[in-house]
Amino acid sequence: MNNNQYEQRRQSVASELSARKLNCLLVAFSPNLRYLSGFTGSSGALLIFPDRSILFTDPRYQIQAGQESTCKIRIAKGPLTVDVLSALGKAGVKRIGYEPARMTCDIFESIKSRLPMGASLEPVQGWIEELRMTKSVAELDLIRRSVQTNSRAFEETIARIKPGTSERNLAAELEYRMRRLGAEKPSFETIVATGVRSALPHAQPTAARLTPGDLVVVDMGAFQDGYASDMTRMLSVGPPSSKVKRMYRAVLEAQLAAIDAVRPGVTTVSVDAAARRVLAGFGLDHVFIHSTGHGLGLEIHEPPRLGKRDRHRLRTGMAITIEPGAYIEGFGGVRIEDTVVVNKTGCEILTTTPKDLRIV
Amino acid sequence: MNNNQYEQRRQSVASELSARKLNCLLVAFSPNLRYLSGFTGSSGALLIFPDRSILFTDPRYQIQAGQESTCKIRIAKGPLTVDVLSALGKAGVKRIGYEPARMTCDIFESIKSRLPMGASLEPVQGWIEELRMTKSVAELDLIRRSVQTNSRAFEETIARIKPGTSERNLAAELEYRMRRLGAEKPSFETIVATGVRSALPHAQPTAARLTPGDLVVVDMGAFQDGYASDMTRMLSVGPPSSKVKRMYRAVLEAQLAAIDAVRPGVTTVSVDAAARRVLAGFGLDHVFIHSTGHGLGLEIHEPPRLGKRDRHRLRTGMAITIEPGAYIEGFGGVRIEDTVVVNKTGCEILTTTPKDLRIV
Repeated sequence: MNNNQYEQRRQSVASELSARKLNCLLVAFSPNLRYLSGFTGSSGALLIFPDRSILFTDPRYQIQAGQESTCKIRIAKGPLTVDVLSALGKAGVKRIGYEPARMTCDIFESIKSRLPMGASLEPVQGWIEELRMTKSVAELDLIRRSVQTNSRAFEETIARIKPGTSERNLAAELEYRMRRLGAEKPSFETIVATGVRSALPHAQPTAARLTPGDLVVVDMGAFQDGYASDMTRMLSVGPPSSKVKRMYRAVLEAQLAAIDAVRPGVTTVSVDAAARRVLAGFGLDHVFIHSTGHGLGLEIHEPPRLGKRDRHRLRTGMAITIEPGAYIEGFGGVRIEDTVVVNKTGCEILTTTPKDLRIV
Repeated sequence: MNNNQYEQRRQSVASELSARKLNCLLVAFSPNLRYLSGFTGSSGALLIFPDRSILFTDPRYQIQAGQESTCKIRIAKGPLTVDVLSALGKAGVKRIGYEPARMTCDIFESIKSRLPMGASLEPVQGWIEELRMTKSVAELDLIRRSVQTNSRAFEETIARIKPGTSERNLAAELEYRMRRLGAEKPSFETIVATGVRSALPHAQPTAARLTPGDLVVVDMGAFQDGYASDMTRMLSVGPPSSKVKRMYRAVLEAQLAAIDAVRPGVTTVSVDAAARRVLAGFGLDHVFIHSTGHGLGLEIHEPPRLGKRDRHRLRTGMAITIEPGAYIEGFGGVRIEDTVVVNKTGCEILTTTPKDLRIV
């Protein structure tokens, strides 16, 4: 990602300030901050004015901020809010946009109570998230690379596992290989859930061992150069029962139907409905207890969401997951998930890992 | 951690509600929620009334919540706030405590605007964090175990590394061993910074290779059974220069002086000052650009902070890090960090890894 890209993004925000009746925008949420400045540190704030931007961080990040960002940089000796307020005072601005979904009540109060006379904080909902939803070609390249790393880590690990491995050790192995292949870290806590535990959609790996007859959910993702991937594949320890086979077929058909429904202009709920319709045909719609997917990028979960109540319209360049599932308490669960990118004619499936129920 | 412990904590909160002029407390911040309920899912809210508690989560966590918590559980079909508001309405409560440092402005607004007539949200600052600061014996056992896992992962990895390894691969190896030894995940992004990059206190591992003459910062921690550890050790690739040796000695003496200053009743700033005084003797106080340490437990950074402006008093049972450092841009940095627990006579140093500058 070159610095031009960050400058262009800031310029696009700056040029829209007046239409939104704002004199400046305050951004402190880390993924938004990174998107607009390139800065990856854990402590920072960005003020975008019509004609300039200032990045605030603390002394721990002084060197790094200068390396990562072309913004003007201010190093705060104390709380960043003090320096932000002082810059706002000097600029004499009146209407300051802030992100209410990203700011805690106490930070809001501490800024509001010390604002210069006549200045006010104005809520801005999802502006930067809206920009982030449609990925640039450079961003899609990074997501594609993250997806490839993730798939390679899966393949390398699965090729070597044996029945008797614990969920924890399998998760550790997957994450290790991901990192060796260039990822910074997992994009969420790797899920490995075996046997009846596969019915927990968000299971944390335990000491439970992969035992013959088990169905195993492996849900994993990487962050590579800041961008997320996300994939779920299923293993069967030994040959699957006919009930498992039927359940697997149902979820796979639902996933393929949802992927088929992805194209620019359709609503997210219609993609979700495509998956639910197939599962209903198998009598499994009532055990599909989450949404069909979500956007991903600098965060593992970003807008749009593809659930029962989501009426966002898909656009070219959106990166989303398609991941229907079915979960039967006391028996087990199945989920199959790919990362796809909306393109002009439908979508490109970034995940190339085969979608068969893998027998180990 | 048995369920009694969680119930006792909720009872302690419940019994203090009236003294704080509250009818109930709303907790949604994950570490506080876990501390009070045992629930480890990523989506949840807890209402504590004088005579009962209700835990809200979504269908993905239905089974898990029942396994982890003895609270009454409500599964929300939509946003948790809808169910929380409905429970508040039924209970007919007036004054509802909330955590302003843990709630975003938009969640606050969405609850506030739909509160039952006559009800109000009342800010509660750091109540649960204050309880969490002093660890129980059971919690200290978990922290001790996390520290041991972390140290073992370090030893196993360092015994095998060779010059030429990249920062990234070393970090991957450390995290892999941590997990194999029982950790869920790193408690923060493992820092491995070699050569001039060691001068970045919060460096992210890169493809840079450990090269003869390099000074290497390794700052790592584990989460095991939810509890954090944190340790920094230094490597020298080949024999260190006399400048490095002097810098190392300065930071080590500063660290020992700070540990020596830890005892119940002293202020956090006095511990920080002890480290700074030693570094000043070496002319290095101006390059010690962060605080001396922080509390840790269910979060990697918790109160108290041990910095220049922190006047908290240490109490028996607090788990804190002691980690002074010195950073010279273009040359390199040194940091040495242990996890310690305040006890009656001073402190117990949990970290047993030797503190010599390790030559690899």
